[in-house]
Amino acid sequence: MPFCLLSCPQRSLFLFQQSKRKNGHSALPIDLLKDEQFLLKDRIDPFGCVAEELKLVERTLARSLHSQEEKLTEVASHLIEGGGKRVRPMITLLSFKLLGGVKVQDAVDIATAIELIHTATLLHDDIIDGAETRRGRDSAYKKFGLKNSLITGDFLFIKGFEFAGKFDETVVQWTADACTQLTEGEILQGFFNRNIAVTIPDYLEIVTRKTASLFQTGARVGAYLAGASPSLIEVMSQYGLNLGIAFQIIDDVLDVIGHERLLGKPTGMDLRDGNPSLPIILALNEGHRAVEEAFVGSRPSEEKIQAAIQAIAKSTAIEQAKALSRKYSDKAFNLLEKLPPSIYRNGLRTMVQLVVERQT
Amino acid sequence: MPFCLLSCPQRSLFLFQQSKRKNGHSALPIDLLKDEQFLLKDRIDPFGCVAEELKLVERTLARSLHSQEEKLTEVASHLIEGGGKRVRPMITLLSFKLLGGVKVQDAVDIATAIELIHTATLLHDDIIDGAETRRGRDSAYKKFGLKNSLITGDFLFIKGFEFAGKFDETVVQWTADACTQLTEGEILQGFFNRNIAVTIPDYLEIVTRKTASLFQTGARVGAYLAGASPSLIEVMSQYGLNLGIAFQIIDDVLDVIGHERLLGKPTGMDLRDGNPSLPIILALNEGHRAVEEAFVGSRPSEEKIQAAIQAIAKSTAIEQAKALSRKYSDKAFNLLEKLPPSIYRNGLRTMVQLVVERQT
Repeated sequence: MPFCLLSCPQRSLFLFQQSKRKNGHSALPIDLLKDEQFLLKDRIDPFGCVAEELKLVERTLARSLHSQEEKLTEVASHLIEGGGKRVRPMITLLSFKLLGGVKVQDAVDIATAIELIHTATLLHDDIIDGAETRRGRDSAYKKFGLKNSLITGDFLFIKGFEFAGKFDETVVQWTADACTQLTEGEILQGFFNRNIAVTIPDYLEIVTRKTASLFQTGARVGAYLAGASPSLIEVMSQYGLNLGIAFQIIDDVLDVIGHERLLGKPTGMDLRDGNPSLPIILALNEGHRAVEEAFVGSRPSEEKIQAAIQAIAKSTAIEQAKALSRKYSDKAFNLLEKLPPSIYRNGLRTMVQLVVERQT
Repeated sequence: MPFCLLSCPQRSLFLFQQSKRKNGHSALPIDLLKDEQFLLKDRIDPFGCVAEELKLVERTLARSLHSQEEKLTEVASHLIEGGGKRVRPMITLLSFKLLGGVKVQDAVDIATAIELIHTATLLHDDIIDGAETRRGRDSAYKKFGLKNSLITGDFLFIKGFEFAGKFDETVVQWTADACTQLTEGEILQGFFNRNIAVTIPDYLEIVTRKTASLFQTGARVGAYLAGASPSLIEVMSQYGLNLGIAFQIIDDVLDVIGHERLLGKPTGMDLRDGNPSLPIILALNEGHRAVEEAFVGSRPSEEKIQAAIQAIAKSTAIEQAKALSRKYSDKAFNLLEKLPPSIYRNGLRTMVQLVVERQT
């Protein structure tokens, strides 16, 4: 988790703010956050900016996994405690704090909901893909089987909605819409499975629904719960959307050129599963036969997979994919110009950079 | 659907009440429902009692299945429009009306939520059991495959929660609790799969969570949304719980002695899947070797299944199971004594009788 490795010179300042809140005082008014001392030109550890809130999310996640049936808790814990990056909760919390949110428990609850829903989709995705590894160890599907993974996925969806359902109709609707988009994205991805007709607009449609929708909802709800104006909520919504697309493109790139040990799973999974990743689409557009053979074959041999990976790596696909990711990440970065400067804004900007530069 | 075949002499009276509500007048006060003319000693068609509301549920269900991805709508419609009995929505609506509920849309929305959640569990159950038929035709799992069934199940869960999330925290919590119980019941049932250690208390625990919890929630929320007192909400909650247990016991009985054509699926499925149904447990307790052989064997032959069905049918298991079902249905029936007499109370009582006598 590279986020933890960054320095955070503002930690003490941040903790000073935090401690005031813990004593029941109201949060710093947003005007105060405009103070020059918060205008940081350098990177800031986004994890450190909301460390206390993230601890609360971890505690809330752990509590929500408790079930009368130990198996549910065991399967859910396997994934939740298995080293997720918590990118979605972090975006939610940073957005909330940037917009001057006061009731931290609100942000913690919705950040928890979003992570639970995300984890539910991972469990179900692994069943669909027959994935054997996830986050460096056996997938829940491999370790606990189809039945336990499927039911635990349902359990986590339910727990996620239990948290989201505590809020007003707007939050419920946005969360439900994001979840509907997740399922629609999965179906659309299935439609283009091993299908060379897939185009870049199709790809962007898939990743917008399947990945970016939850990033978008986290950033949007965080701002909404902070009491931000509709226009600022929309800015944060667009930030989340663009960051989410950039995030998924880098995921696809790492599936080709990443380090298996860092990723915690083998590379080439998109080719094995026939998922239309951006580098695959770009290499197909360049007419690389080896990529086409591995992508369209129903059970491509390991030899063909490796040949396709080599072909993609040697093509301009990775370069092009990174450039497209950069386009979306730049947009996310620049959108934050419209928000008042603060450590949280710096944290969200650093998030953008980390997402683009990440190795895992 | 035998419910439709019952006569409903009070239909016109009911419709008169309905039309008043549609014009925006308040519902009949509950005292009026005590009027002698509503005291019906005979059976009443519970479907007819809430026919207008059920039509609204059907329309709301159909609307909620709409997705940008046609495949989701297609898979969901296959099951939703495939002839479900709508028992859960009916209980919800009747409970709401019995307790003098006015805002019909509230009851319709939560009844829709409950049917969507129920259908989601059917889709996922069929994956777990590898079921080939459901409601007289190919199961969604067989027709559309694992991936589409799994994602459509998620989609229906999400839609169900979208409706439930429109209500206050009490309704959200009760609905989420019921759903959590569904998953816990499924895990518990899995634990006792082909496991001769299963006891009748284990069975009751499984069916309470896996089936009765949603009946209970429907009846409970119906009363709550009608503005009933806590004690009457609790009466309706217990009604739903007891009816749900009776319903599941009869389901188990029909899996042994039912008519395949009426059921829309083969009998003996519990033996094939190794699910600990009540007749199986009772026959095991009587020491029937043929039942034990079929139940514990990992892939029992069709010959063994048929031998076990014969053994159960000849034992006292069916008689005992029916007696236990009767115990729970009687409790549900008698609980309604505590509610004011009305066509809706009669409808709920008739529901009890229909559940016990049903052939499908």
